[in-house]
Amino acid sequence: MNLMLYIAYDQLLETLARALEKAGFDSERAASLAEIFAGNSLEGVYSHGVNRFPRFINDVENHIVDINARPECVGSLGGMRVWDGHFGVGPLIAQAAMDEAIALCRVNGIACVCVRNSNHWMRPGRYGRQAARAGVIGMCWSNTCANMPAWGATDPRLGNNPIVLAIPREKGDVVIDTALSQFAYGKLEVAKLSGKMLPIEGGYDTHGRLTRDPGEILASRRTLPIGYWKGSALSIALDLIAAGASLGRSVSAISRAGGTECGLSQVFIAINFRAVVNAQAADHIFDDAIGFLLSSTPAPGQPPVRYPGQNMAAIRAENLQKGVPVNEATWQKVLDLAAR
Amino acid sequence: MNLMLYIAYDQLLETLARALEKAGFDSERAASLAEIFAGNSLEGVYSHGVNRFPRFINDVENHIVDINARPECVGSLGGMRVWDGHFGVGPLIAQAAMDEAIALCRVNGIACVCVRNSNHWMRPGRYGRQAARAGVIGMCWSNTCANMPAWGATDPRLGNNPIVLAIPREKGDVVIDTALSQFAYGKLEVAKLSGKMLPIEGGYDTHGRLTRDPGEILASRRTLPIGYWKGSALSIALDLIAAGASLGRSVSAISRAGGTECGLSQVFIAINFRAVVNAQAADHIFDDAIGFLLSSTPAPGQPPVRYPGQNMAAIRAENLQKGVPVNEATWQKVLDLAAR
Repeated sequence: MNLMLYIAYDQLLETLARALEKAGFDSERAASLAEIFAGNSLEGVYSHGVNRFPRFINDVENHIVDINARPECVGSLGGMRVWDGHFGVGPLIAQAAMDEAIALCRVNGIACVCVRNSNHWMRPGRYGRQAARAGVIGMCWSNTCANMPAWGATDPRLGNNPIVLAIPREKGDVVIDTALSQFAYGKLEVAKLSGKMLPIEGGYDTHGRLTRDPGEILASRRTLPIGYWKGSALSIALDLIAAGASLGRSVSAISRAGGTECGLSQVFIAINFRAVVNAQAADHIFDDAIGFLLSSTPAPGQPPVRYPGQNMAAIRAENLQKGVPVNEATWQKVLDLAAR
Repeated sequence: MNLMLYIAYDQLLETLARALEKAGFDSERAASLAEIFAGNSLEGVYSHGVNRFPRFINDVENHIVDINARPECVGSLGGMRVWDGHFGVGPLIAQAAMDEAIALCRVNGIACVCVRNSNHWMRPGRYGRQAARAGVIGMCWSNTCANMPAWGATDPRLGNNPIVLAIPREKGDVVIDTALSQFAYGKLEVAKLSGKMLPIEGGYDTHGRLTRDPGEILASRRTLPIGYWKGSALSIALDLIAAGASLGRSVSAISRAGGTECGLSQVFIAINFRAVVNAQAADHIFDDAIGFLLSSTPAPGQPPVRYPGQNMAAIRAENLQKGVPVNEATWQKVLDLAAR
């Protein structure tokens, strides 16, 4: 049984930072990285927060993640930078890359940092939130190893390449954070364990028929891209842009390298629209558009429509007050890592 | 019965240009716009090529499209521009905006032009191709009127906001051009007329159940976003960015304005990666990634996997040789418009 513990946020931060220092991080980088892992859980993205921490430490110890590597700028033009991550710490590289894009867009209007040889960045939406908190539009995406067949094919040759779009807004940022697979493997496993069918078709069974049965999809390994042929095409394009513009690894190269998914290519874009148009007028447009959306008529039995990211502030407030939910077994592992 | 005619490309160009001059365009703009409409059909996008031309002329005559309006730059910072299209000619504004983004990215690395008060741009992929032909990555999207319910809702409050991603490549550009609805209303109508079920679920029936029956979806008006809740979120984000960064109309404002869809907000981004990284190395990465994709194992009964845009060169070549397919009734309308 996996009991859920509720850990005070400050205690979570301290414990993660201590574990990172034990793993070899200096105190400043340990604190930054702890804040990313703890913050992801704090805002409700448990799959890519503390629950993923022991696996990250494992990647450090297996030299998949080089904690001493620092991103290097290898190309530059106007508001564009190309960085080599040198197989360093994905979340820290991503945070630094979005920070650089944010800084560059202050004078360039729009800026991008294309990164090669990075590693898993954990929760993608984190870096969109970072841009939104800085008052700019953020867009970013990463490629992955091949984990999804192209439309019409049976073997995985596409990444589910997560993409983020974030819009700063006085009354609450709008943050879209989505992978291009309809269901992550993790979600399929949870559904299978709980004996539930998926609410919609999520892939193919072993006979090549679309199915809602998560066990069948796990057996066939034929997950669906969002929008079938449409997500298949989007996945290809995001991979080509990330790998080509950074001279990094494509989904093909990541997969052929074998082993754990590493050396990813990522793109970070920031748009400083508030310096070009009236910020209050833009906020008024956002509020009107969100109001129109929220006044949708819910389908029978459905809750009111929400905007993407709407629940985040409430989850954050609740977790700050009650403690951040962490699996007991995971927490024990974290404590062990911090006590070494 | 709608017979298909095959019109020589040059004749198509000349006839469309003549009709545009009769509608009040000067010869230069008539030639540019004729090239867009004819070119869209030439490359196989018949729904947004010549077949849409009579409707465009109708919009001109109904003063929905102002042929005398010129886009005006109303804001600027580094590689970012905001334009007011003043309800002018959508395809010409879009072409000029992408040209401006392409020019700006030569010195800024990345550039964007955010446009408000434009009009329907016909085939979105056209402007991605334009960027790719100039050797840069192109991204663009438009909002639309509300034509799709948000996830969990029954009334249309989202646009199917088309998005384009284009990658220049020696051996053939990769161009993704997709709306965020799983099926356009036009596709549903064609399927219904031919008595065919959709290959996948495309929306809800009038009882609120997911269905493959195009007639049921046309009756309920509940089309599906790609990826269900995921495309719903993407649609919201693209609308907010386009409207907020240009101080233009959102899907909400376009819809509330009533009447024909007009005054759209659009974003055009160009990335001059070849000036920052080695172009040949990037092309090698593209070729490797495409090769990996094309060597996918097709599902039983399926053709080999293609990359997005792969067929375009062949369609173009065939249509140049045999003539461009145009519905007979449409062609007669075009001839009438040119003979006034």
